[in-house]
Amino acid sequence: MKANDKRRERGDRARANILHHATQIASVEGLEGLTFGRVAADAGVARGNVQVLFGDREALQLATIENGVALYAETVVGPAMALPTAVERLIALIEGWYTFVEQRTLPGGCLVHALSSEYRTRPGEIRDRVEHHRAEARQRIVDLANAAINAGELQGGIDVGVLAFELTSYQASANVAALMGEPEQFELARRASRERLAAARGV
Amino acid sequence: MKANDKRRERGDRARANILHHATQIASVEGLEGLTFGRVAADAGVARGNVQVLFGDREALQLATIENGVALYAETVVGPAMALPTAVERLIALIEGWYTFVEQRTLPGGCLVHALSSEYRTRPGEIRDRVEHHRAEARQRIVDLANAAINAGELQGGIDVGVLAFELTSYQASANVAALMGEPEQFELARRASRERLAAARGV
Repeated sequence: MKANDKRRERGDRARANILHHATQIASVEGLEGLTFGRVAADAGVARGNVQVLFGDREALQLATIENGVALYAETVVGPAMALPTAVERLIALIEGWYTFVEQRTLPGGCLVHALSSEYRTRPGEIRDRVEHHRAEARQRIVDLANAAINAGELQGGIDVGVLAFELTSYQASANVAALMGEPEQFELARRASRERLAAARGV
Repeated sequence: MKANDKRRERGDRARANILHHATQIASVEGLEGLTFGRVAADAGVARGNVQVLFGDREALQLATIENGVALYAETVVGPAMALPTAVERLIALIEGWYTFVEQRTLPGGCLVHALSSEYRTRPGEIRDRVEHHRAEARQRIVDLANAAINAGELQGGIDVGVLAFELTSYQASANVAALMGEPEQFELARRASRERLAAARGV
């Protein structure tokens, strides 16, 4: 391996370590409280290293969002999308979200739902990225539901926009309930999601 | 009026002015960012006045929550509860929430939904108060729905816990959507609420 490649590999590892800690912090405390000093202390590196690797605080915040979304994609979206039928993919995607939060894959639950509330009143690049991921998550449900309708796996008459809205609303509630010590509200959310999907399948 | 009464009246007015500004700030920026200095600057008073009237920062934060809840009680809950039948009270309560947020009665929308997300990972007295108001809002829906069932205004078979969960989930979504520039998601929430209530009435 060339010296350049080794240097790059070291840089990538350092970056991944810092982002791992930044994502854990952001899931619990939000992105507004994320500073170079806080992340450096948690990651066990010098503050200057974080600065060299990320440049400014907003770049670190934006990279943290993408890292959280990548973790969710790897844990939930990828495995769900690998299933053979559209309806199986849709069910696994929704069930996977509840498992992701329940098992505290991130200690603060779902990063995108948390940041949606934190940044709803803060226009700017961070909010734009959060909004992008919100829209993408909704669109994923809409696309899978449409594919499932076309395959005859969901009933033809359902409004896929309403279905996506309901499923993401139950997640919004469940993300708070899980951390707030309201297990019965978390279970109501999971049950309501299952019932909506069962009704859409006509079972 | 005695000198003591005048002094108390002046103190009450100063407190109300400070809490008005604190509630506006908290609805947009959350309670974590609420400091004596920030509130004093907004309210146009000396920082020392805020300190004398509230003592410590957590006392100001707790008083801000109660002030926001009192504003909502006055604007939405009170008028709804004055209606003659239980089902009218329930409908007015839900419609009133959407109007409260849509008209930006507070610039950041519903304070309790916003603080639920902000404090879900922060145990302590503030979260306990938020949890108290969350439970109270859910119980209000459950009680009205039960009263409406007993009066024959809602169908007997409905699960009032599920109804309260669904209506508050749609609010959780709508509170983000309203401020995030997602008017179609806000309208889906209002429409889904109306449809749930119409289905519960059997109309």
